[in-house]
Amino acid sequence: MIFEVRSIGRVESTLTDLETAPRQGDEGRGIQPGDELTVLTWLDRARREVLSVHPRGDPTRPMEGVFSTRSPHRPNPIGLHEVVVRAVEEGRLRVSNLEAVDGTPIIDLKPVLSRDVRNR
Amino acid sequence: MIFEVRSIGRVESTLTDLETAPRQGDEGRGIQPGDELTVLTWLDRARREVLSVHPRGDPTRPMEGVFSTRSPHRPNPIGLHEVVVRAVEEGRLRVSNLEAVDGTPIIDLKPVLSRDVRNR
Repeated sequence: MIFEVRSIGRVESTLTDLETAPRQGDEGRGIQPGDELTVLTWLDRARREVLSVHPRGDPTRPMEGVFSTRSPHRPNPIGLHEVVVRAVEEGRLRVSNLEAVDGTPIIDLKPVLSRDVRNR
Repeated sequence: MIFEVRSIGRVESTLTDLETAPRQGDEGRGIQPGDELTVLTWLDRARREVLSVHPRGDPTRPMEGVFSTRSPHRPNPIGLHEVVVRAVEEGRLRVSNLEAVDGTPIIDLKPVLSRDVRNR
């Protein structure tokens, strides 16, 4: 089955290649500074035909199926990023810890649930 | 921007309406019993035009933007489910704690990262 995902925003970041550091997200009614959110991105540079990889890109590790790794290369290249909201501005969120390249499409935002309520 | 998501499997469950209880997932090279995985599903019964809801479906709570809630109704109805792998069978995973309706399309699986490595 095939579904259509539509971007709801995009990452603005000084990151243009993946190394470290973070910047921002998307819209904000009900979202407050200090909130922990999971940002879901569409990793549009990923290779979707890849089904196995060396974990963490380390060629000395044996190949594994992509589903036991966090590789961006996978059939549906969705990234999960836990961030902290720093500021809610008009139509824009400022967050810390978003390790995603500038321009990466954002497809969803969800509040992080504490571990004890997560599986209820 | 629009992207195509393709299902990689589907939920098999005794759950046919959403109440409680769980069952299983998808493929397994590198995935072991005991592993914690995040299962990403496509909530194909959700209403994608909904942008605000009463949190937890409680009409006494004020409406909030869907992105500060875990409502299934949202522009891209992707579900995140933390599960524990119980058995790896031929082309199938048996898991606990998957709160998703029978037949729900699965679009990705990722290992759960411990909180301290999650944001590195």
